[in-house]
Amino acid sequence: MRALQFLNGQLQLRQVPVPSAAEGEALVRVTMAGICNTDLEIVRGYAGFSGTLGHEFVGVVEEASDPALLGCRVVGEINAGCGACQLCRAGDPRHCLTRSVLGIVGRDGAFADYLRLPVSNLLVIPDGVPDRAAVFAEPLAAAGEILDQVAIGAGTRVAVLGDGKLGQLIARVLQTTGCELVLIGKYPEKLRLAQQAAIRTVLRDQLEVAPADRFDVVVEATGSPQGFEMALGLTRPRGQLVLKSTFHGAVSIDLSRIVVDEISLIGSRCGRFDRALDLLARGAVDPQPLISAEYRLDEGLVAMAEAARNGVVKVILHPAAGH
Amino acid sequence: MRALQFLNGQLQLRQVPVPSAAEGEALVRVTMAGICNTDLEIVRGYAGFSGTLGHEFVGVVEEASDPALLGCRVVGEINAGCGACQLCRAGDPRHCLTRSVLGIVGRDGAFADYLRLPVSNLLVIPDGVPDRAAVFAEPLAAAGEILDQVAIGAGTRVAVLGDGKLGQLIARVLQTTGCELVLIGKYPEKLRLAQQAAIRTVLRDQLEVAPADRFDVVVEATGSPQGFEMALGLTRPRGQLVLKSTFHGAVSIDLSRIVVDEISLIGSRCGRFDRALDLLARGAVDPQPLISAEYRLDEGLVAMAEAARNGVVKVILHPAAGH
Repeated sequence: MRALQFLNGQLQLRQVPVPSAAEGEALVRVTMAGICNTDLEIVRGYAGFSGTLGHEFVGVVEEASDPALLGCRVVGEINAGCGACQLCRAGDPRHCLTRSVLGIVGRDGAFADYLRLPVSNLLVIPDGVPDRAAVFAEPLAAAGEILDQVAIGAGTRVAVLGDGKLGQLIARVLQTTGCELVLIGKYPEKLRLAQQAAIRTVLRDQLEVAPADRFDVVVEATGSPQGFEMALGLTRPRGQLVLKSTFHGAVSIDLSRIVVDEISLIGSRCGRFDRALDLLARGAVDPQPLISAEYRLDEGLVAMAEAARNGVVKVILHPAAGH
Repeated sequence: MRALQFLNGQLQLRQVPVPSAAEGEALVRVTMAGICNTDLEIVRGYAGFSGTLGHEFVGVVEEASDPALLGCRVVGEINAGCGACQLCRAGDPRHCLTRSVLGIVGRDGAFADYLRLPVSNLLVIPDGVPDRAAVFAEPLAAAGEILDQVAIGAGTRVAVLGDGKLGQLIARVLQTTGCELVLIGKYPEKLRLAQQAAIRTVLRDQLEVAPADRFDVVVEATGSPQGFEMALGLTRPRGQLVLKSTFHGAVSIDLSRIVVDEISLIGSRCGRFDRALDLLARGAVDPQPLISAEYRLDEGLVAMAEAARNGVVKVILHPAAGH
């Protein structure tokens, strides 16, 4: 099969054997995959991963111990825990210390014709949800994680910083709570996408917030030290600053501001897929307008370059097309 | 009256007029005051304050609009809000943007014969609580703030990092919850004080914690970048790291660790005095063994030098003595 791999510091489309599903795993034929910033970071050498990239996917189960799954259209939780440790037994394989992570840590990913994942990681996609929406399940789940960590409801004043893939999804998910939301971004064309979803936006350079008007909750989704600094400046005393993007290297932080103003900094990563699928099934969030471009898997190198361009939001790969 | 002031970059004992209590304020004769690390930091030039130092005190009300307060033994909330802003009206003058803070921001402090504070800031000390215990009300309130921010109970695994004045009080307050507590420190003689209060301790250099044994809650009370780094390393995935000390300048932080392990960093400063007095009145916490030395106000310069020495915990000033 074909696989878009990062090997020896190079991104390359390779022919590799179809993986064998281990005990408890399913073999999934990938029909669609999304490119995430993490994929771009891996190619920049930040993550120390080598193997097949990709962790956002829709696929069809071709082999599984549970016959009810065969032929089903699925998405999949990307963290595969050891199953034996305290965290796994408590139902949290996402933080298992020896977990593998699809296309990120010790497990080949979704930019390929096939992938394998534990059967327990798979969720069947509700009938009404098209592939182009379901392929966002993983980042939508990550966006929804914020709702499990912070109380956000009608009247909560929330700012999302960053108009990229993740910031856009976070804004859409948080908007479902009825909070007072603003998305702060750098690119007018990206902010326009949010406006079309009835999200209030403001250009970063035009933002003016008086100290008394700072936000209850600020979500940092730029991953840049400047973004962090701005996010901290926008958080009110006793407010919550959610860190949703990973940062490269150490960031210099005024911890005294955090102490004196009693701010909470909340690290936030992966989330529950069931909620993401529910949001899609109910039509509460429609991520499809965020798709900027679609490519065949063969065109993976071009697609990755496109995904890294300014102004581009989500780029989709189609392993099934042009095989 | 006498006042220990930090003026023009110098600590000096001066003769100054007795302050006039403004509308709504009381005049308090100070009978005892405690030296805090913040006082030491002000003298090192970190806080930009000039005036009379000191914010931990016990005193007797000599003038007040409410005659019931006259002659009462009191402690006092150190933040004086504007009374008009949204935060003040919501009952949180501690975060009022234009607040003054006793001996720290825009208001002369307690290392003097007299101080003035809004009447609403004062709390009458319960009869059974001696001055030497009540003088700890402010830092005890600050320690208790953690309980308003983080769920800690029987079975919660908690590490307090720092065996200084604040770390010692925090350990004593958290111990009242029945949590599984350890105090991590640098000085055997300080750890011995905690052991005498039946607190489990460990020397920092002898600490070994396997990744699976990291703590649910870690309280950073060293105020040093190395302390912060160690505290972060001791926090389990999805754990909470409480920042209780202010830090000088920016600290370099691996934010990705916070995101990937979904750690919450919780800034924590001042707390409720009523709880502190209740802990003292019930005998749940006895801070008096933390008093290392006591001085007359005349000896303020010597007392401040003593408070800065390694191995010294709390140093007390007695304005009433040797007048």
